[in-house]
Amino acid sequence: LHIRLILVVCTFALTMTVQAEEVPPKKMKNVVLIIGDGMDDHQITIARNYLKGVKGRLNLDEMSVRASVQVLTIDEDNPTKPIYVADSANSATAMATGIVTSRGRIATSARADEDLQTIVELAHDAGFKTGLVTTSSVTDATPASFVAHINIRACESPQTMNFERRGVLVDCSRDQKANGGLGSISEQIAESDLDVVLGGGRKHFEMEQEAGEVTVEEMASASGFTVLHSKKALSDVHASERLLGLFADSHLPTKLYGEAGRVAEKPEPSLLNSIHWSLGEVELPVAMNCVDNPQYGETPSINLMTSKALDHLSLNNEIGFFLMIESASIDKQSHARNACGSIGELEQLDETLATVMAFAETHPDTLVMVTADHGQAAQLVPNQSLFSKLGIPVFTPGQLVRIKMPEGGEMAINYATNSFFAEEHTGVAIPLHANELGRPLIRTLMTQPEIFDVTRKFLGL
Amino acid sequence: LHIRLILVVCTFALTMTVQAEEVPPKKMKNVVLIIGDGMDDHQITIARNYLKGVKGRLNLDEMSVRASVQVLTIDEDNPTKPIYVADSANSATAMATGIVTSRGRIATSARADEDLQTIVELAHDAGFKTGLVTTSSVTDATPASFVAHINIRACESPQTMNFERRGVLVDCSRDQKANGGLGSISEQIAESDLDVVLGGGRKHFEMEQEAGEVTVEEMASASGFTVLHSKKALSDVHASERLLGLFADSHLPTKLYGEAGRVAEKPEPSLLNSIHWSLGEVELPVAMNCVDNPQYGETPSINLMTSKALDHLSLNNEIGFFLMIESASIDKQSHARNACGSIGELEQLDETLATVMAFAETHPDTLVMVTADHGQAAQLVPNQSLFSKLGIPVFTPGQLVRIKMPEGGEMAINYATNSFFAEEHTGVAIPLHANELGRPLIRTLMTQPEIFDVTRKFLGL
Repeated sequence: LHIRLILVVCTFALTMTVQAEEVPPKKMKNVVLIIGDGMDDHQITIARNYLKGVKGRLNLDEMSVRASVQVLTIDEDNPTKPIYVADSANSATAMATGIVTSRGRIATSARADEDLQTIVELAHDAGFKTGLVTTSSVTDATPASFVAHINIRACESPQTMNFERRGVLVDCSRDQKANGGLGSISEQIAESDLDVVLGGGRKHFEMEQEAGEVTVEEMASASGFTVLHSKKALSDVHASERLLGLFADSHLPTKLYGEAGRVAEKPEPSLLNSIHWSLGEVELPVAMNCVDNPQYGETPSINLMTSKALDHLSLNNEIGFFLMIESASIDKQSHARNACGSIGELEQLDETLATVMAFAETHPDTLVMVTADHGQAAQLVPNQSLFSKLGIPVFTPGQLVRIKMPEGGEMAINYATNSFFAEEHTGVAIPLHANELGRPLIRTLMTQPEIFDVTRKFLGL
Repeated sequence: LHIRLILVVCTFALTMTVQAEEVPPKKMKNVVLIIGDGMDDHQITIARNYLKGVKGRLNLDEMSVRASVQVLTIDEDNPTKPIYVADSANSATAMATGIVTSRGRIATSARADEDLQTIVELAHDAGFKTGLVTTSSVTDATPASFVAHINIRACESPQTMNFERRGVLVDCSRDQKANGGLGSISEQIAESDLDVVLGGGRKHFEMEQEAGEVTVEEMASASGFTVLHSKKALSDVHASERLLGLFADSHLPTKLYGEAGRVAEKPEPSLLNSIHWSLGEVELPVAMNCVDNPQYGETPSINLMTSKALDHLSLNNEIGFFLMIESASIDKQSHARNACGSIGELEQLDETLATVMAFAETHPDTLVMVTADHGQAAQLVPNQSLFSKLGIPVFTPGQLVRIKMPEGGEMAINYATNSFFAEEHTGVAIPLHANELGRPLIRTLMTQPEIFDVTRKFLGL
């Protein structure tokens, strides 16, 4: 009874005092959503081991909120039927719109092909600034799903709205402007209300728009974007400019790659082993170093792009902003069986997170979330098989990268979802890390559309 | 200033009142550590999709604390060198003792081969009761690491202390009693101070002890255990008995298995495909149902074993207890490429968690943690390849299970870490779920030895 009485009195006194002394000014509310494409726990562990050592910690490991996110996909022909592995288009659409769709779709609904309002559109309509930063082409599935609406992710430019690719028809003609549509993804970006778009994909903007004699890039300039092509131009630009940065023809090159450009290779069993799996010997791929990719050159880092985006989005802004940052090549380099490429890309993401967290320190109403869109094939496997003592050649039927580790030893990474030139995605639930502001909104298991809900609630949309 | 003054006064008033009114009685403090062997996020997602549907939730998804645990292993010959993939012996040793060791070791240090004090021993010495429940043989690596000390996990009984297995010498002679050691794992369990040990492994107790004419089981009886062999005996036993339950010769059978005993199978490409990977067609394994394993029969469930363990451990106990519960065959059935087996085993774990959480409701100082020991090979992959539209046969070089899902559709699981009769472990960081009591002690990324630290701190050891 005594405790209760004291509590009531104290609470009342404190409430009165706070009300009397603090009338909080209207504050900017921001959401920064960082997406590591394909960044499941396996890819994080592989990168952490290499970059920080097996006992080391990434910046994302210091975030106070940790959850798991179930990825949802549905069948195009029968939208009530679940599909257990996503692609980047449908998973980004879930985060951008809160709606589950089918593989390959950009912010459109399965089967019905209806345009789905994105968080970028919602935020813009409510006065928030918006931005997209990526290491892929800005027209690629993940960034596209936040701003464009089209039935097939491959329809990135006016010239690819209706074409045959390896014998398969890619048909987005319904979305062509001549048919009353919004046009290709690059055209939709050029005419969007985004304040900042930074990444690759220049080739999709250099061609002429669907009907007219100007290029898509010229369309973008006409609609108010300052178009940038180089790291220097980005470094020099004034924070007040609305930016469209196109820093490579297609995706930005990765920072790291395997020594001499090597990727995963097949183990080579001896002749005797072709007679029976328990006979003979096997030669595993020689261990390699991860080295600087010479093609990276003057590519702006995700960190630089993010700093510039934050400068613009926070300038004279009393309402707030939504910024999506994608580290795209964790996925692309896992498809290509280039473990070093994925590691270098995750390193860039983690450096960028430090910049974002520093921004959140000085702008305390900034919710920061780091997540992935789907799982990827790369698996950390024993460098020396668990069964190595049996004197039998035990090795992967897939392809293997063995990396020389800065802390000594070797780490082996297996790619074995297919023998095609690109590995498959996986359907594992993916991590979500957030700063403390996320705690009241984030459950330890969420579904991917709930990331949209969290963003919307936090921004009051 | 006003706020600060009020806060100081209130804090003082509250502290005084609490000190005056509450002299808390000595309360039982318990830790229940549930280990899903091999239960990484991939295995959880696969089981969740099957058991609850793609939007469903397991009991473990309702736990309020979620972290990731980095698994640590070192090289036997050079203990400063990290190894990136663990086995169940060294990973259980890390959780049981707080010390990182090399693969195959049971609560002994790498190279130096020193016995490492386990949480079971520490807890017993401080007056806590202790118990182990598992679906493996009770002498298997995970339970063994909490109670025994031996250099090789295969030394499970007096007859396997020094033998050749597939051409490799298994030598635990240093630990034989004749040499002043503690004896085999089954002998160490029989002479342990554990209050409850329930699982399989009868064959390791039926033989005579190292020197003497009684069996290991008789040793156990002599040292105070009531030995049980059947579900009925377990159901009927009085809560006051110290229990050694041995419900199968070796590991307990799993609840589910693949229709007609089928496990993963290799896709069958057409003849044309052997000429070039882009030619011909492929026949994937026919989708199957998960069905009841006829061998399961009268096997006691983990849930029943756990209920009985909780009854005994909480009876007339004012100090508390430590209970480790292992669902062993998530791992064993992933080694064997039997996805249904792993799913059924994870279902058992999740049912048991409900029982443990209900116990924690009525015994509020019970810290409940659910984790894994290491990752496993099984990967949820697309049932229809991401590249299926290209008209090229794209399929795994490994082995595939396709499961007919209760919610419709099919889920495909890939096993492709080797072509041996058992898949490899993986090195992915693993999940840790805990109830609210764990929050002050658990960071979002931990290392595996820190699970020992958390337990010790919570129990005040």
